[in-house]
This record gives sequence, structure tokens and C-alpha cells, in this order.
Amino acid sequence: MAVTLGHNQYGKAETRVVRVFRDSEPHEIADYNVSVALAGDFADVHLTGDNRKCLTTDATKNTVNAYAKEAGDAVRDPESFGIALAKHFVDDVPQVSRVRMTLEAYPWDRLSSGGSPHPHAFSRRGAYVRTATVTYDGSELWVVSGVRDLVVLKTTDSEFHTFYEDRYTTLQPTNDRIMATSVTAQWLHTDLATDWGASFDRVLATLGGTFARHHSLALQQTLYAMGEDIITEQPEIAEIRFSLPNKHHFVIDLSPFDVENKNEVFHADDRPYGYIEGTVRRDDAPNPGPNAFDPGQGW
Amino acid sequence: MAVTLGHNQYGKAETRVVRVFRDSEPHEIADYNVSVALAGDFADVHLTGDNRKCLTTDATKNTVNAYAKEAGDAVRDPESFGIALAKHFVDDVPQVSRVRMTLEAYPWDRLSSGGSPHPHAFSRRGAYVRTATVTYDGSELWVVSGVRDLVVLKTTDSEFHTFYEDRYTTLQPTNDRIMATSVTAQWLHTDLATDWGASFDRVLATLGGTFARHHSLALQQTLYAMGEDIITEQPEIAEIRFSLPNKHHFVIDLSPFDVENKNEVFHADDRPYGYIEGTVRRDDAPNPGPNAFDPGQGW
Amino acid sequence: MAVTLGHNQYGKAETRVVRVFRDSEPHEIADYNVSVALAGDFADVHLTGDNRKCLTTDATKNTVNAYAKEAGDAVRDPESFGIALAKHFVDDVPQVSRVRMTLEAYPWDRLSSGGSPHPHAFSRRGAYVRTATVTYDGSELWVVSGVRDLVVLKTTDSEFHTFYEDRYTTLQPTNDRIMATSVTAQWLHTDLATDWGASFDRVLATLGGTFARHHSLALQQTLYAMGEDIITEQPEIAEIRFSLPNKHHFVIDLSPFDVENKNEVFHADDRPYGYIEGTVRRDDAPNPGPNAFDPGQGW
Amino acid sequence: MAVTLGHNQYGKAETRVVRVFRDSEPHEIADYNVSVALAGDFADVHLTGDNRKCLTTDATKNTVNAYAKEAGDAVRDPESFGIALAKHFVDDVPQVSRVRMTLEAYPWDRLSSGGSPHPHAFSRRGAYVRTATVTYDGSELWVVSGVRDLVVLKTTDSEFHTFYEDRYTTLQPTNDRIMATSVTAQWLHTDLATDWGASFDRVLATLGGTFARHHSLALQQTLYAMGEDIITEQPEIAEIRFSLPNKHHFVIDLSPFDVENKNEVFHADDRPYGYIEGTVRRDDAPNPGPNAFDPGQGW
Repeated sequence: MAVTLGHNQYGKAETRVVRVFRDSEPHEIADYNVSVALAGDFADVHLTGDNRKCLTTDATKNTVNAYAKEAGDAVRDPESFGIALAKHFVDDVPQVSRVRMTLEAYPWDRLSSGGSPHPHAFSRRGAYVRTATVTYDGSELWVVSGVRDLVVLKTTDSEFHTFYEDRYTTLQPTNDRIMATSVTAQWLHTDLATDWGASFDRVLATLGGTFARHHSLALQQTLYAMGEDIITEQPEIAEIRFSLPNKHHFVIDLSPFDVENKNEVFHADDRPYGYIEGTVRRDDAPNPGPNAFDPGQGW
Repeated sequence: MAVTLGHNQYGKAETRVVRVFRDSEPHEIADYNVSVALAGDFADVHLTGDNRKCLTTDATKNTVNAYAKEAGDAVRDPESFGIALAKHFVDDVPQVSRVRMTLEAYPWDRLSSGGSPHPHAFSRRGAYVRTATVTYDGSELWVVSGVRDLVVLKTTDSEFHTFYEDRYTTLQPTNDRIMATSVTAQWLHTDLATDWGASFDRVLATLGGTFARHHSLALQQTLYAMGEDIITEQPEIAEIRFSLPNKHHFVIDLSPFDVENKNEVFHADDRPYGYIEGTVRRDDAPNPGPNAFDPGQGW
Repeated sequence: MAVTLGHNQYGKAETRVVRVFRDSEPHEIADYNVSVALAGDFADVHLTGDNRKCLTTDATKNTVNAYAKEAGDAVRDPESFGIALAKHFVDDVPQVSRVRMTLEAYPWDRLSSGGSPHPHAFSRRGAYVRTATVTYDGSELWVVSGVRDLVVLKTTDSEFHTFYEDRYTTLQPTNDRIMATSVTAQWLHTDLATDWGASFDRVLATLGGTFARHHSLALQQTLYAMGEDIITEQPEIAEIRFSLPNKHHFVIDLSPFDVENKNEVFHADDRPYGYIEGTVRRDDAPNPGPNAFDPGQGW
Repeated sequence: MAVTLGHNQYGKAETRVVRVFRDSEPHEIADYNVSVALAGDFADVHLTGDNRKCLTTDATKNTVNAYAKEAGDAVRDPESFGIALAKHFVDDVPQVSRVRMTLEAYPWDRLSSGGSPHPHAFSRRGAYVRTATVTYDGSELWVVSGVRDLVVLKTTDSEFHTFYEDRYTTLQPTNDRIMATSVTAQWLHTDLATDWGASFDRVLATLGGTFARHHSLALQQTLYAMGEDIITEQPEIAEIRFSLPNKHHFVIDLSPFDVENKNEVFHADDRPYGYIEGTVRRDDAPNPGPNAFDPGQGW
């Protein structure tokens, strides 16, 4: 028996770079958290501590910061910023054969002053984080856009009943419940010439509209309906993956206090929570293989 | 020498109660995190474990939940919900002489569907948390409104220079920097007949407008300007207290890479951060004493 | 009516400084998070942006870092490190009249190698954070030591019954329950020549021993018992303040599955939680006034 | 073009169940956070909201709770508890073809009272979380043990130099630095008859010992050395995967204050951080395929 090195990757994680576009009036702002994961010819670093091929993580940070200026308009969207960086790392650093860029973008809204939007003052939106993952191996390029921490809730139009029952089933069926979730979604593009910002906004609008409009029999069904509508409207999206915690709102029994509660007072519970994950795909979409959504170590 | 019991208080913290107003079209939602701290004749509980005067924390939770229905329209604002609860605990439970209610309210926006606001689907705003603290001792009632996690940033119109220098001073002065902070503010009302929601919205509008418009020489100056404008516009506010972390955005030196950076690329740092705290008061306002903002144990 | 400036303080928060004592074998480590809050003659900064008296928060950070070497052995304990810094800021910077230093210290344990403790490798203890708060106004000095995030649990020897019942009371009494809490405690010293490390260890030993040994009728009673034993054993402690969330462990009803549960299976709940706060004092201890535990803005 | 359902899984996440073994003296405690992810014949739930095959997430929670008693001694280790649950879900629920159990276990230490360990009082260790992931598809069973949040640091015996330099490289080489990381590791077992607790303890001892003893030229090299030693000592471990954030401790330049800093005072930085991930394998170990470490949605 011998011991060997398996899959490995490294880089600088969470470089918090903010780009201000000051040359335009009004000012614009792009606020990123950028992580780099490089794979390639790095066995020597692990086996003997020979760092001659090791691009320092400090240098990957410097590159992210420099590209926040050098990459020009590509910096305006996380997808295009990630593509510019991914191409550099693989194309310009010989020992790097594959890179995975993971970007978070924090949206800002313009503050109002005297009734009109201010040209250089902002407040952080907070309603969600926009994400992008770009993977590049020197020939193929995978671009995945996403959103997380988008919390949505509907006060009615949600049922859950007629489910399977085993000996551990005690849940009561319901014809009217609150349904709420914190959306994490990621979707794979097949058109790399997309207007990334417009595409993102459209996904979000469809997602919210379908969540609102859909009469739900299960959170899984809502997941599928949102995915179906998004892919139908934007066929350049090959597939979309969701992780949806069911943020349970339990009706509180107020009868011990002689108070009637007709679905008006709820306990917003923390843990445990249902966790619903699913993928919706165009049936003619290419198989993304292990690359587009690859997390690295399996987590 | 003998050992004695000093200040003490107790109750149920962080009851997460959500109230849906379903009888109106469209539905409305009030989403709270409610904490109760009771003080009174509770020495026996501590000294001998005699609980005969101990209102259980479970009962304080039940009360919060029941009042989410029983208190009617008072539930629509955290201040009025807190007042209703505070009066109950002191007026109806003999051994309670003082109560401090602390409420967080999470704002929701209506989702759009087909171009118009949906009557019963929402997304969580996320831009800030609205807070209220109500203290009542059986005769006096203090109502403090607040906000936290409101992150604001301006890309220019902020200077910092001509400061005191000691032997540990190395900071370079600047005539143009990013200024950003995450606002925590609490303000004391002298008019308890206020429209709480309208009052809160007006404070937030003034705060944002002044932050945007004010040409800043120090975050302290901006703090004071925001407080001054709020109190001038809303004289029913006796004082406002701010805790403002200076969310530093450092200009990154890109010259080693032959990239010019004229205040365009910044590192958003985590720690350490300047922490600026200050109070702005109406000079004829009553002294709030130790009660209105009293945290209990000194933290 | 006019608007005026009230209480204010500022400084650099959360300077994360680590000191290695390399001159001794084995190496020792002191790992701190240090926050500075200065008060004094700072009205001009707020009112006009005149910074001529403003010691920059950057300089307070530099001072903390430099003192991590300059203060010598005082750096080994958070209390003595805080005292050294507090004296500097008030005594050496004319416009500072009062300072509040808040320190967190993260304990590390030595790693084992080949069966014996390694001289320069460590793992972070994680079981709690040690804290110190030092307040100094040029004449008086208050030193408060503390602990937070110390989670303790007992599987029996805890009862809760014979409590007050109002119309919102539904809790069932119990003669045997799990009692668990995450201890936040702070205690005021009257002897400033204490061996801080030994004093801290002794408080922790008493706290844990009393928690274990005490047969509890209420978490309040346990709080008082711990405080009483600490002050009795260490009369140089004038008072100790506790904030104890009751980390509820609810017995799960397994009878629907024909499984007997005699206090063996529990749900560890998140929110809401009972929150018990109390102070235990030496009856001849000086009144700490608003200074020792003063949080600044009331939070 | 048509839209189809891709990979999906669901279940109850983060059931916080605590088991007390009261029948033995002293008492023992097992403290878990258990997540269930079921895959199988669930297309109808997504496509039409037909829940007839949907085992409710509430029932999966009930099962976890009931098994905390029913599974007997298997409950003492997260691996064996996970195996018992995994077998139930796949073998007893016809429409479930595959399950992934993810467990966190929080270790507790016995409190001391009067100089000896107390039989039923504990404090939470806090130094790390023990983890287990069990995947079962009706025929094969993969058991992965792990640890997270284990923070280790060495004050010397770490170098980093002679690295690759590109135009973005500005890092200075060093022959002596602090090396610190927060270990997340997961390892795959080939022997399912292991004493899980003893195996875990041995991995942790080797990991800590090698980290301490190894003279490091790169964090990657330390990663490999730890993995190599673990697999060499415990050949029943097929592979181990690490995610190691490089918790940077930067030497602070104190020369502006005329203070010498010979690697004694450091800034513990938050972000960005190097992020080093790697796998070490027995060369004759079976390929784990996509199952053992499968996160589900790619995250």
C-alpha cells in the first residue's frame, strides 16, 4: 500500500473588493466577495514543499484587485468579472489547468435626497446576494449564475395533504398554510454572450412572480414551477438547481387562552426545517458533467 | 460580610411571532422577535427556589403569542405592540413592578406578479431591522424606536484630515474617501400618540437624505448632522443615540502592477473598525434617566 | 428649542492582536480582540468637523498593537493589558478624560506530540471566551473580568414547579429536567493587585462546581448559588452579574410510536428561550456606579 | 424543447436531538444535529403536487427522534446512529432508493466538583464539531467521518518561500511564520465494523501530533503530511479530504513607533484567506464514486 495525493485546489478566498465607477455621473458601485480555486500541477507543493510552481494565494488576491480596474466594463457583472479572471489564471499561468471562480455580489440601492436619487450615496439592498461561479479548464467555460438569501413568503394558496403515512407520521394535513423559504438557486448558461444583469433580473422576476401566483400543493411543486417558468422564458438557461429550506410557520394554538386563531398567529420556527432540493433542466441541455457545479472537495 | 441579591430581571427572549392580517385585502404581515424582561418581587426565587411568585417564562411567551391576536391593531407596529404587552405585565401581574419589552420587526415587501403587487406574497426586505424598546414601571412609560443593520455608503463627499497626532499616529489625511457605516440608532419619543409607522419612515428618510447630502469631515460630524436634522424635523423625538461602525474601504495600491487607482478600487475590511457612538438631544428634553435605554445588566 | 450633543465615545473596535512569547520555552500565546472607547473633549469633531483634538481610531489601533510588545508581562492577562492601555489613553492624551477598554481573550491548549505537550503548537480551546472590561477616568479605575459562551448542562438534579399561574400559564411542573445554559458573567474586582489568571481560573472552577453540585429549583436559584459561592470564596470580588439563557431541552413525546421516553430523548430548542439575569453582591461592596459596567449608549 | 426534473432530494434538516444515557452511572450524553436527504420516486410530488409517495419531512424528524431511543447503543456514535437511520429509510420506505444522513455531534466534557468528575454535569467542549455522513442506496453503504472548526496554530517551524512569481506577485518570502488553520476534514472508511469513537480519537491525535511536529514549507505540505500519517496508521481509512483556510497572522510593523517586533506581535486577519483543499488516498482504495461525499446539488 502507498499513499497518494488526490484532487486538490487552492487559492485566496473572500477577497472583498469594491469598484466605484466614478467617471460616470451618477457614480456606480460593484461590491464583490471573490474566491479563487486553482488546480493544476501542484503535486510537488504537497509532497515535498517545493513551491516553485506555487502561485501564491497573495498573488491571486492581487490579481483580483488589479482586475477590478484592468478588466474595465467586465467588472460590472460578477459573471463577466469571473470570466476575465478565470481566463487569466488558466491562460497566463502555465501550471494552472483549471480554475473555479466563486463571486458574491452585494446589490446597493441609491439613497434619496430631496425626493430624487442621489448620485453617489447608497444603501445596501440586503434582500439577497447575487452569485456567480465560473469554471474554466483552458478549453471549456462554464458560467453559473445564482442567488441566495432571498426570503419569500405567501400567506395563503399553499396546501399540504394526502401524503404517504408510515408509523412515524403524525403530521396533520392542511388546506391553507403559510409557505416560506429562503431561496438558494444556481443556473447554468449555454449562451455566454448574455447581458448578465438583465438575465439575472429576469430570473428573479420570474421566480418571484411564479412563487406568488402558483397555487402550491408542496414546496417541491413550487420549486418545479419556478424552474419550469424560468427555463421556458429564458431558453439560454440549461438548468437551474434549488436548495429551499422550508421556513416553517406553525399555527399557534391559542384556545387555552380562549383566543381564536384562524391562521392569523404563527410561530416562525428555526430548526429543524424541511430542506427541499431539486434541479429543473431543459431536456436537450448538455450534461453539465462534474464541472459546472463542482464544489471541489464534495462540500 | 454577607452576600446579597442585586438587580435582576427575567423573561422569555426571542419569541418569533408572525401575525397575518387576513381580513383585509391585500393581506398584511407583521413579523416580530419579542423579548420580555420582568423585574419585581423575585428575591425568593433566587434565594430559596420558592417559585410561588414566579410567572413562568413560558407564560410570558404564551402572552406574547395571544396578544398578537388580542391586541388588535396595536400589533401593526412594534411600539404599540410593546406598549400593550408592557401594560399587561405590570398592571395584571402583581409581583411585576417593571418590564422591558424589546422587539425586532422584520419588514417585508410585496412581490410583483404580472406587473402589479401581489395581495398575499412577500419578499423580506433585508435592508434593515426595525426595533422598539418599551419600558414601563406602572406609572411612567418610555418608548424608544430604532433601526439596525442599515448599511449606507457614499463614494465621495467625505474627508478626514487635520487630526491630532501622537507618537502612534501614522494615518495619512485624505480629501476624498468612501464613507460607509452600518447604522444602529435608537430614539426616545416624548409623544406617545405618534403614528409609529409614519414616524419611523420619516426618521429613516431624514437619516438617509442627510447622510447623502452632508459633506463630511468626520463620521462624528455626519452622526451629529443626522441627529440634528431628525430632531429638528420631528421635535417629538427627545434624543437619538447612534452606534456607527466605520466600515473601512481602503484604497488599494495597484502601482506595483502598473495600474492606476484613482479612488476606484477598494478593499472592504472587516476588523478592526472605527466605532463611533454619540447622542443628539433636544436641549429641553427630559433626562431619560437610567430607564429608557437601560439594558439591564450593563450589556 | 436647540439641539445639543449628549454622551459620545469612539475608538477602534476589534483589533485582533496576537502576542507570542517566544523568549520562553515553551512558547506562550495571548490572543486578543481589543476595543477602545474614548470620551473627552470631542464636541468640535461632532459640531464642526474640526478634528484637531481627534486622536484617530487608526492611532488607537496602532497603540494596541505597539503595547502588545511595550507593555511586557502585562500583556499576559487581558485585565493587566487593558489597564496599561487605559492609563496611556487618559494620562497621555490630554483631551481624553475617560476610556473604556473591552478585551476578549481566546484560550489555547497545547497540542500533544508523542505523548507530551508540544512547545509551540496549540489548538483553540473553544469552550469559552475570557473577557475583561477596564474603565478609567484619570482617578478611578474599574476592572471587570468575565466569561462568555461557557455552555453547561446537567442531566438531572433540576426541578421546576409550584410556580405562579395566570391565565396564560400552561407549563407543566417537573421534578426532573435537563438544565442547560450558556454562561455570560462579569465580575468587579476591588483588589487591583490580583493574579488575574489565577483569579479567573478559580471563578470558573467554583462556577462549574456549584452548577454541578447544586440541586436546582429554578435557574435563578442556581444563578444565585454560583454567585454566592464565588463571592464567598473570593471576597476581592465585589459583585458578579450573570446573563443566563435557559437553553431548553424539551422531552420528546415518543408515545405515538410506542417508544417509552423516560427523560432520555430531548429536543434542544433554539428560540424562544428563558433569559435569566441577575447580580450577586457583597453587601459591603462599593456601589459600582454607572462606570464599571457602562456599555456606553445603553447597549 | 421540454423541461424535465433532474436530481432531487429532500428531508428534514437540523433535527437537534439530545440523548441522555441515564441507566448508567455516570450519565452519558450524545448531542446531535441530524439532517436527512431522501431520493427516490418523487417525480409526482414535483410535477403535479401528488404527495401520495411523499414521506413528510415531519415524519423523518419523528424517526430521528424515535431512533434516538430505539437504536440503542448505536446512538452513542454519529456513524452508527446514521447507519441505523439510513437503513431504515431505504429498507422500510419503498419509494426511497437512496438516503444521505448528515450528522453533527457536539462533544461534552464532564464538569469537576470537589476535585473529581461529576456524574451528571457537563460543559460543552467547543474545540471542534465531530461529523458523520452516511449514504446508502439499498446495497452499498458509505460512511464518512469528519471534524470541523478545529483551530490549530504553531508559532514557528513554518516557512514559505521560493514560490512562483508572476507580475502580480508581491509577497515577501519568510523563513519563520505563524501557521494556523481551522481544520475541516472528512475521511471515508472501508471497514464498517470499526469502533467509531476510538477511530475518531486516533485520527484527531494523529492530526494534531503531525501538525505540531511537521516542519512546514507550505500549508499544502502539512495537509499532505497529516493525511499520509492518518492513512498509514489507520489503513481502514481509504481517503481523507481537507479544507484548510490559512488563518493569516501577519507580523505587524512596529518600527514607526520604535518598537522592535521579532515575530512577537501579529494581526490575526479575517478576510481574505488562503484556502487549501486536498485529498490524500490509499492508492489501492476503491474509487468513492460520486456517492460518499456527494453534497446533492453541488453545494
